[in-house]
Amino acid sequence: MEQPIAKPRPSYAIVLAYDGTRFEGWQLQPQRRTVQGVVEEALSKIHGVTRVAIVGAGRTDAGVHALGQVASYTPPTPREPAQLQHALSRLLSHEVRPLSVRAMSNQFHACRSAAGKIYRYRVVNRPTLLPFEAPYVWHVPQRLEIGAMLAAAATLPGTRDFASFSAAGGQTKSYVRELRRLAIVPRDDGEISIEVEADGFLYRMVRIITGLLIEIGRARRSTEAVAALLAAPRVGSAATMAPPQGLCLVRVHYPRDDDPHSVS
Amino acid sequence: MEQPIAKPRPSYAIVLAYDGTRFEGWQLQPQRRTVQGVVEEALSKIHGVTRVAIVGAGRTDAGVHALGQVASYTPPTPREPAQLQHALSRLLSHEVRPLSVRAMSNQFHACRSAAGKIYRYRVVNRPTLLPFEAPYVWHVPQRLEIGAMLAAAATLPGTRDFASFSAAGGQTKSYVRELRRLAIVPRDDGEISIEVEADGFLYRMVRIITGLLIEIGRARRSTEAVAALLAAPRVGSAATMAPPQGLCLVRVHYPRDDDPHSVS
Repeated sequence: MEQPIAKPRPSYAIVLAYDGTRFEGWQLQPQRRTVQGVVEEALSKIHGVTRVAIVGAGRTDAGVHALGQVASYTPPTPREPAQLQHALSRLLSHEVRPLSVRAMSNQFHACRSAAGKIYRYRVVNRPTLLPFEAPYVWHVPQRLEIGAMLAAAATLPGTRDFASFSAAGGQTKSYVRELRRLAIVPRDDGEISIEVEADGFLYRMVRIITGLLIEIGRARRSTEAVAALLAAPRVGSAATMAPPQGLCLVRVHYPRDDDPHSVS
Repeated sequence: MEQPIAKPRPSYAIVLAYDGTRFEGWQLQPQRRTVQGVVEEALSKIHGVTRVAIVGAGRTDAGVHALGQVASYTPPTPREPAQLQHALSRLLSHEVRPLSVRAMSNQFHACRSAAGKIYRYRVVNRPTLLPFEAPYVWHVPQRLEIGAMLAAAATLPGTRDFASFSAAGGQTKSYVRELRRLAIVPRDDGEISIEVEADGFLYRMVRIITGLLIEIGRARRSTEAVAALLAAPRVGSAATMAPPQGLCLVRVHYPRDDDPHSVS
């Protein structure tokens, strides 16, 4: 007599956009309002269980935003993805928006399956900030030498030990990362976007890189500071950090055959 | 013996950007938080007087934003424009930003000297709103026939009696205005900008025009509705109005020889 084989349950992927201003970051913490916390609470209501545990692709800090955070979990009760998205959309405040919900393979894991991420940091370099910008940018009114910033940025990409560009407190065994792209994009209106793509990021890496580039732009440090920090990798030695509100997790990349962004 | 001629004091023009979300509109009202109220309060402190009365180019409604509101007043005590801007910037919250302060002719009056204004209304036409967008757009998730909206919009510009596109409660003798431009600009990401330029606007005119265009886009009214409303001008007869938060006063035009935007 044949045993029925239990069909492995699929993992669900939720692509989320959020305004991090009024959250104490992504990660669940008791008694704190976190993005993971409010999403888990909504999913628990939808599935009618005490707790649904989700995994995020990246642990964004307090005040950091997302246009494409990805969370995954195994639904404890069957629900259609479209129905789930609708219910989540209704239960969550406008600060957290579920952009899509997809059924993935049962191996899919938002963090472990990720092949890369893109972050964007927005700096506004003009005397006055617009009222709409304050929660989403770093206001640097001082004159910036964009040329010096570009020269310093050009030396960073590659597969390297980025320990100097990591803050203490992260959980990683290796500080080697592949920094695939670091673009500084100045606009006519004084906004400067710093776009960074890597296979993975160290703790506060983008904010440290941005802080250092701005120090170089303000001529408070030399263009060679980057090379020196790469030559002697040591956690915390960049000793600078841009504030959280300018940072946004834009996109998480996954292999093509298990990608929550691909049209199914 | 010659009498010294009192030199007429110049009028000052302040260009302001504001996030109208947490204000009950521009106009001063007792016990209410209005933009005019907080700016007058700051100027009173700066000049050390009980009240400084300012005049705005346009009276924006509660929830309506501005990128280029213009206010004018006659300084009761001498202050340098640059010093005034700095002091205002420090005293006002980040919701109201003084973009420039200029000394104008003594005839300058932010409202009476204005030669025209540009408003922009932002509609987002896709299933999900991003968290950053909610306070600044009207979310219309239903399918819109942009072609029908463009056809209807094309019939509006010109010098006409726009009474049908005015709400009751405005203070005007004539309902004739010159609508110089009405552009509907759809973007790839589902945002639709409605940009309107006129010599002046009737009470809630842009919100009424936008509400009507969206009704036409949703095929709840025909393209001919606009022509019918123009043919029989009557206040309030458009009977529709877009919500305030999508609207922004972008720019106020002045004659070239007395323009607070011109480089002095």
